[in-house]
This record gives sequence, C-alpha cells and structure tokens, in this order.
Amino acid sequence: MQILKDRIRTEGRVMPGHILNVGSFLNQQADIELYNEIGMEFHRRFSDAHINKILTIEASGIGIACVTAQYFKAPVVFARKFRAKNIGDNLYSAEVTSYTHGIDYTITVPRTFLNKGDSVLLIDDFLANGCALEGLVALIQTADAQLAGAGVVIEKGFQNGGKRLREQNIRLESLAIIDSMSPEEGVKFRD
Amino acid sequence: MQILKDRIRTEGRVMPGHILNVGSFLNQQADIELYNEIGMEFHRRFSDAHINKILTIEASGIGIACVTAQYFKAPVVFARKFRAKNIGDNLYSAEVTSYTHGIDYTITVPRTFLNKGDSVLLIDDFLANGCALEGLVALIQTADAQLAGAGVVIEKGFQNGGKRLREQNIRLESLAIIDSMSPEEGVKFRD
Repeated sequence: MQILKDRIRTEGRVMPGHILNVGSFLNQQADIELYNEIGMEFHRRFSDAHINKILTIEASGIGIACVTAQYFKAPVVFARKFRAKNIGDNLYSAEVTSYTHGIDYTITVPRTFLNKGDSVLLIDDFLANGCALEGLVALIQTADAQLAGAGVVIEKGFQNGGKRLREQNIRLESLAIIDSMSPEEGVKFRD
Repeated sequence: MQILKDRIRTEGRVMPGHILNVGSFLNQQADIELYNEIGMEFHRRFSDAHINKILTIEASGIGIACVTAQYFKAPVVFARKFRAKNIGDNLYSAEVTSYTHGIDYTITVPRTFLNKGDSVLLIDDFLANGCALEGLVALIQTADAQLAGAGVVIEKGFQNGGKRLREQNIRLESLAIIDSMSPEEGVKFRD
C-alpha cells in the first residue's frame, strides 16, 4: 500500500533495537484519513471472505479495527490484556508472551462475544513475532469460531511471526512488509 | 439520543454497585453502526466549535473517538495509562484516581501531539466521578492548548463528575444522562 509506505518513510522513526515509531500517525496519534484508506484496503483484500466479526487487541489496534469495520458492516470485539492468570469462567483466554516488553500476559474476551458460526477477521497494527495474533487465533479456536484471516498494517518481515502464521495456512494480508531497517539506512520494504 | 437510550434499556445490564454493563454494544464489543450515529451526534452538537484534534484515553474510548473523528476531519490522540509515576521528559502527564477500580494512575501523551493553538474535543464512553476527564483537561492546560469541550456517551448523573465539569464552565455534551439505576428498577434517564 503505497501511501502507507510513503508515510512510514517520511514520518516513521527507526530506533535502535528494531523499533519503528509510527506513533505520530498510526498509534497514539491517529490520522483518520489514513485509517480510512487502510480500512478500504483491508476490505478490498478480504472482499471475497464472509466476515461477520472483527477481533483485535487493546489498545492501539482498536481504532484501526473500528474504522475498518465500517467497510465490512461488522461489529468489533477487542481482547483485553491482563497480567493476572486467574480470570473468570465467563471468559475465553489465551497466554501471550511479549518479546518486545519481556512479559507474559493473558488476553481475554467474554464468551458471549465469540460464537460458533462467527467468521472472524483479525486486525492489528503490527506483526513481529506473531505472539499477539497467535493468542487471538487461540481464542477463536477455543470458541469454535472460524478464522477468515488476519489483516496487519505493518509486518516486520525480518522477524518470524508472518512466516509462522503463513505456515499454518492462515490467510495473512500485511499492508507494508519491512525486510530490514536501521537508524542509519532507514526502512527497506519487500516488493 | 433516543437510539442510544433504547439500546441501554434493552441490552444494558445494571449490576450491584452502580455498574452499568454495556460491553455488548459500546465497549469490548462495538456496534459500529451505533458508533457512527454517536459520531454524527457529537458532530451535530459541536458543529459550531472549531475542533482540530480529538483526545481520549485508552482503551474503550479509542474506537468511539476514531469513528467520531471522521466527522470532524481531525486526528485522534489517546492518553496512555501507567501505574508508574516516573515517566519521560518528552511526555505531558497528569495523575488520575479511579474510584471504580480503587487505584491511582498516571496518564500521558507525547508533548509533540498536543500543541498551543490546538482546539481539542475530549471524547469518552463514560463519565462518573469525572477523574479521567479532569486528567485529560489537565493535559490540555499543561500543553497550553484550548479545550473546545467534552463529549461523553453515557453520564452517570447521580455521580458528581458532570456537575463538577459544568461548574468549571466546560462545555459538556452527554448523549445519555442516567439519573438513577438499580438491578431491580433498571435505568432512569434525565429528560
């Protein structure tokens, strides 16, 4: 998606430790016009899939998921993150390891929000090691719902999350895949 | 806003302790058609204000703020919540006490995302004691930006947050104000 790549090149800041700061337009500050372009692009790529629900994870995935959901005319559910392992009986849960932040956490959704027969599109802003998305996949499997696919705005192609998800035959659409990046050389996108 | 009140009446669950669970359509699961109606209503009520930025707080305010922002053609910034008090120099911060959860936390936004000359609309899903919104007001004041007003989806009118904000001459628009609620008698709205 060219306009996204252009924004990453002009406004993204590559920090040491493989961190890409796109907070000025994609995360903590959201350019809503760009969000709309992203939502339309996800809808174009998944137009043949019958999606009746969008699932994301708090916090920075929520805005992108909500704007995208308008094009699918589907509700959005977001998974909450907890540090605690003891959660209630009325929740589906999965364990996630965050390599970025060096912690384990539990993600949950109320059981009533994911049902057998749901055809679910996962949406998230970043894909790196894939642990968050794999946690969402586990929630869908536990709920016996269908996974229609996963839409990611920025995939760090030099980490192995995308590879692992594709090997599981999960339909993954990433709007920008970064093959390498460094503070000195900037961002190199996959063609 | 009648369709919102109808949804609260039919799908909201009043729990002991003045808790109103509207998670099935307003929070953890989001009815995006309703979000659009909410966004249009906020835009109608603030159509005379010159708003160039929308500020909310993670997590459940983000989706409503992003859908609403489309009608204002303005970017969204969300404040992050931290339990820590030590935060970096490049952030504006404010202390917030959550009576609901019995904790204090710090909210932050990067300094570059709030500027003098910004005319900011606050958006949040709930207003009860008003501590979260007052924290956002403090961020705006610290940044020397202008507060155009605050748009809240559900105000618990029997708690004092709305009263306190109005006494400060903050322009507050609540789409549904609840005067009383109980598991036995349900929800009573202010006319």
